[in-house]
Amino acid sequence: MKIAFIGLGSMGAPMARHLIDTGVDVTVYNRTAAKAQAFAETGARVAETAKEALTEADALITMLADEHAVREVLDSALASLPRGALHISMSTISVAYSRQLAERHIQLNQRYVAAPVFGRPDAAAAKKLWIVAGGHAEDRARARPLLEAMGQGVIEVGDDPISANTVKLAGNHVIAGMLQSLGESFALVRKAGVSAEQFLDIINRLFKSPVYENYGNNIATEQFSPAGFKLRLGLKDMRLILAAADASETPMPLASLLHDRMLTAVVQDMGDLDWSVVGRLAADDAGLARKGE
Amino acid sequence: MKIAFIGLGSMGAPMARHLIDTGVDVTVYNRTAAKAQAFAETGARVAETAKEALTEADALITMLADEHAVREVLDSALASLPRGALHISMSTISVAYSRQLAERHIQLNQRYVAAPVFGRPDAAAAKKLWIVAGGHAEDRARARPLLEAMGQGVIEVGDDPISANTVKLAGNHVIAGMLQSLGESFALVRKAGVSAEQFLDIINRLFKSPVYENYGNNIATEQFSPAGFKLRLGLKDMRLILAAADASETPMPLASLLHDRMLTAVVQDMGDLDWSVVGRLAADDAGLARKGE
Amino acid sequence: MKIAFIGLGSMGAPMARHLIDTGVDVTVYNRTAAKAQAFAETGARVAETAKEALTEADALITMLADEHAVREVLDSALASLPRGALHISMSTISVAYSRQLAERHIQLNQRYVAAPVFGRPDAAAAKKLWIVAGGHAEDRARARPLLEAMGQGVIEVGDDPISANTVKLAGNHVIAGMLQSLGESFALVRKAGVSAEQFLDIINRLFKSPVYENYGNNIATEQFSPAGFKLRLGLKDMRLILAAADASETPMPLASLLHDRMLTAVVQDMGDLDWSVVGRLAADDAGLARKGE
Amino acid sequence: MKIAFIGLGSMGAPMARHLIDTGVDVTVYNRTAAKAQAFAETGARVAETAKEALTEADALITMLADEHAVREVLDSALASLPRGALHISMSTISVAYSRQLAERHIQLNQRYVAAPVFGRPDAAAAKKLWIVAGGHAEDRARARPLLEAMGQGVIEVGDDPISANTVKLAGNHVIAGMLQSLGESFALVRKAGVSAEQFLDIINRLFKSPVYENYGNNIATEQFSPAGFKLRLGLKDMRLILAAADASETPMPLASLLHDRMLTAVVQDMGDLDWSVVGRLAADDAGLARKGE
Repeated sequence: MKIAFIGLGSMGAPMARHLIDTGVDVTVYNRTAAKAQAFAETGARVAETAKEALTEADALITMLADEHAVREVLDSALASLPRGALHISMSTISVAYSRQLAERHIQLNQRYVAAPVFGRPDAAAAKKLWIVAGGHAEDRARARPLLEAMGQGVIEVGDDPISANTVKLAGNHVIAGMLQSLGESFALVRKAGVSAEQFLDIINRLFKSPVYENYGNNIATEQFSPAGFKLRLGLKDMRLILAAADASETPMPLASLLHDRMLTAVVQDMGDLDWSVVGRLAADDAGLARKGE
Repeated sequence: MKIAFIGLGSMGAPMARHLIDTGVDVTVYNRTAAKAQAFAETGARVAETAKEALTEADALITMLADEHAVREVLDSALASLPRGALHISMSTISVAYSRQLAERHIQLNQRYVAAPVFGRPDAAAAKKLWIVAGGHAEDRARARPLLEAMGQGVIEVGDDPISANTVKLAGNHVIAGMLQSLGESFALVRKAGVSAEQFLDIINRLFKSPVYENYGNNIATEQFSPAGFKLRLGLKDMRLILAAADASETPMPLASLLHDRMLTAVVQDMGDLDWSVVGRLAADDAGLARKGE
Repeated sequence: MKIAFIGLGSMGAPMARHLIDTGVDVTVYNRTAAKAQAFAETGARVAETAKEALTEADALITMLADEHAVREVLDSALASLPRGALHISMSTISVAYSRQLAERHIQLNQRYVAAPVFGRPDAAAAKKLWIVAGGHAEDRARARPLLEAMGQGVIEVGDDPISANTVKLAGNHVIAGMLQSLGESFALVRKAGVSAEQFLDIINRLFKSPVYENYGNNIATEQFSPAGFKLRLGLKDMRLILAAADASETPMPLASLLHDRMLTAVVQDMGDLDWSVVGRLAADDAGLARKGE
Repeated sequence: MKIAFIGLGSMGAPMARHLIDTGVDVTVYNRTAAKAQAFAETGARVAETAKEALTEADALITMLADEHAVREVLDSALASLPRGALHISMSTISVAYSRQLAERHIQLNQRYVAAPVFGRPDAAAAKKLWIVAGGHAEDRARARPLLEAMGQGVIEVGDDPISANTVKLAGNHVIAGMLQSLGESFALVRKAGVSAEQFLDIINRLFKSPVYENYGNNIATEQFSPAGFKLRLGLKDMRLILAAADASETPMPLASLLHDRMLTAVVQDMGDLDWSVVGRLAADDAGLARKGE
């Protein structure tokens, strides 16, 4: 089985390596060629164009930074993927674009599974990603061993590929909501003379969740750099969430609020910080001094 | 050491029992006398009035349903508490009222610790409450063994009693924020053909938190009765949060949103259901059918 | 007919003068005595205490800065108002307090009309206030000639005094909503290279309203001082609106938003500027330069 | 001068007639051919395709229902418009699409003015539209006499066509904000026993604006049909506003709120009613009975 793997950024690179480690035949392609060259020594073939990577592939895996990148790479090359080949789309993209991809694959007699992931680069490196898969049952079955090679678990959600994209966005919404409620709460208790660390300790005892622990620690210590997930990308995801909400007629007032907060943070030059920086925005709005200032 | 314990509802009753089990001398009082009578057999004395309970107490513990109840019981009786005696206020009350109590105790030469709790009646019964204590160091030290008898841990937050009340409210804000983000997310994925159960499974893998598990299960199965914590009380807490936010000049737009949602739910006759019912409101707004309808 | 007039601030002073000009017998009282002394030459009597002013009055008119001031002046003095005398309460107060006043007047066998006003100091001076009156029909009838002496029109809204207080608050909500939508719109068009003045010109052609013209001009020119109505007072009104909404179970998400924006503006030291400064907050959030900076 | 006029709906038809009345040479085209046939007797030529209408035109005027319709008609036909001809785009479209059109016209050596209108069909019929024009000065000068024939006034806003589209959207935002604040306020006063008519009377005295008078009357009487402007289209506009806000980094929390309310109203089958029906949604949320129910 020949695999084309496109997108070797901080997420894609470790995922591709896990795949290569299983011994399958992988051809990699990356828009910035240097990142692809680094794979030459792993035994993977390095394609010089997306088209070249796709031409003989049985399966194509895409893991690009965002929808714009996916469109740039695939829009012209997709027709080069053989009939019957399977596209496993792992990037976080809009529901609308996933639907377009699904339709295009039908026209081209190709197969399509949407399989976005939960986890940051460190989780990708440690094979700790959770992968959500949507698509026809036989396609999911075909994708599963490849996906299992890249994460700690695969959760299949339905026959419609967009079900997986929606789950990914909805999961991010839950995290983003947590960031905002933590941010406001930290600001409130700090105003009452409670230290952020003390409040975080309580939150950790209540929730017992590594997600609260990690992000809560960011906000309590105001460490937003290096970014695990940039606010700018978080804002993009809020747009995708609101677009999905709009298209499916699901009012999501909290998503609107989160969008507005993240947009405000971007205007205030926080776009390249970790998206938990919405917590600092809440503190700023309350007139609290920044740590170390 | 003589303890007066006031408030024997679904939270106070098991807490009082834990205290009695340690062998301290407890006098109980409850506005509805029948609940107090049930304590006669435990070895506790049963007072017929709040005043009677307070007169010879070294420490007073109050655990009433809300601020209104605390005011009703204490406003006239408080002067009967001896000089030097310690009031441990465990009810969820407003920051402003806690500050008033603190001032009144100073005037009356009494001591005051605010010690609200996290946990529902089942946690109270299982001695699994987390207790947050605020007040002067010597008062907290005096309160600690009593508090330890009633929960799984005591977290001391500062010399100002209101620091504890604020932490309690802020903690509830974090939970309420979670309910809304879960509710919206469940609605969104259901619209995309994903079952609530499937999404909950993913959330549980991501967050690994019993709080998400429990409340997520409520929303996924639409089981909101019997209520662990009534929406009506949740709305009250949102008011207390917003009042604390106002007084301390902490803008909390998410708290405003949560307040509005809960008020809308109360208008729609959901006030006596568990406060996770905001999740159903999100589904209703999206036009999704209710389970079993 | 003897009138006691309490509250000689920027609103009350011109209103009292209009009343005195009609020839009725007026006794004035003000907490800051100097302002009352200025009335000695108008033919009004000047009382040294609120009690003294009330003792022989047939009608009491109160026009104080806010509810706190009304409570401070009236709570102890009110019993001095003769049985059967009429209290016309013109300050902007909470619905809850107006209801308390109504009950207290019943206990004291006094009559009560709530009659808040729309208009700023310049309108009060020009007798251009609109006055909204609520209370029993016979009391409204008794109040009417006095009210007509102070404004350009009296609108009677119902037998329940709180109906008038609610109308006043609701009217301010409509104005506040306008400020926010103008502020956001000005920010949006400025980002597209349209001058604020140009957009204001269009708004004026569309709405043809002096209210849009005046406030729109504030926002377009960023002239927020001197304040016609201070943001700090606007925030107070938003609190009264939300309290009324809460008590009557009326979800008002826009009122919540306006509250949050005004609170944010107060934190940013805009509290003493005109409340149209929420328009500048919208521009600040968009990263637009302030005029003259 | 030969004019091609495309789009003969409830807005376009009367606008085209005004133009024809000035004696210029007009060719009309409409996707639903019957509406175009009705113009045969006016002296206008009737084209059977958009391409045919454009081929010899000196100026093209488009007035279609929405962006989708504009794309459908123009995307393929635009190249048929002669070099140097002027496109006057009067439909309400997104800022992003207007920018695309501007670029395409440059490529095709055509001229472009964006000239959206304020006003409903009755205003179009009465030549009472306000028209906002953006584009190069010489193009605006060329468009002006045509625009003046269709409205009561032309307001030129800048050299960049998107300035006009942005102004149109921002103006609609101001109107939508008014609808929401009126809706919430009507609900609040009705809960206090004040009739909607009484409150409207007060609002009219305060604002003295025909816009408040008309929309206020819709909400007070709950007459939302026939729709002057359908909620469904209002929701579309909110999307365009939020997209423009996003692209220009202008946080607009009120626009987000309005979007959410309109989306909720669409889910509740109010999409074909007048967009002032957001006022009824506010009343519904407060549990108020609908008029006549």
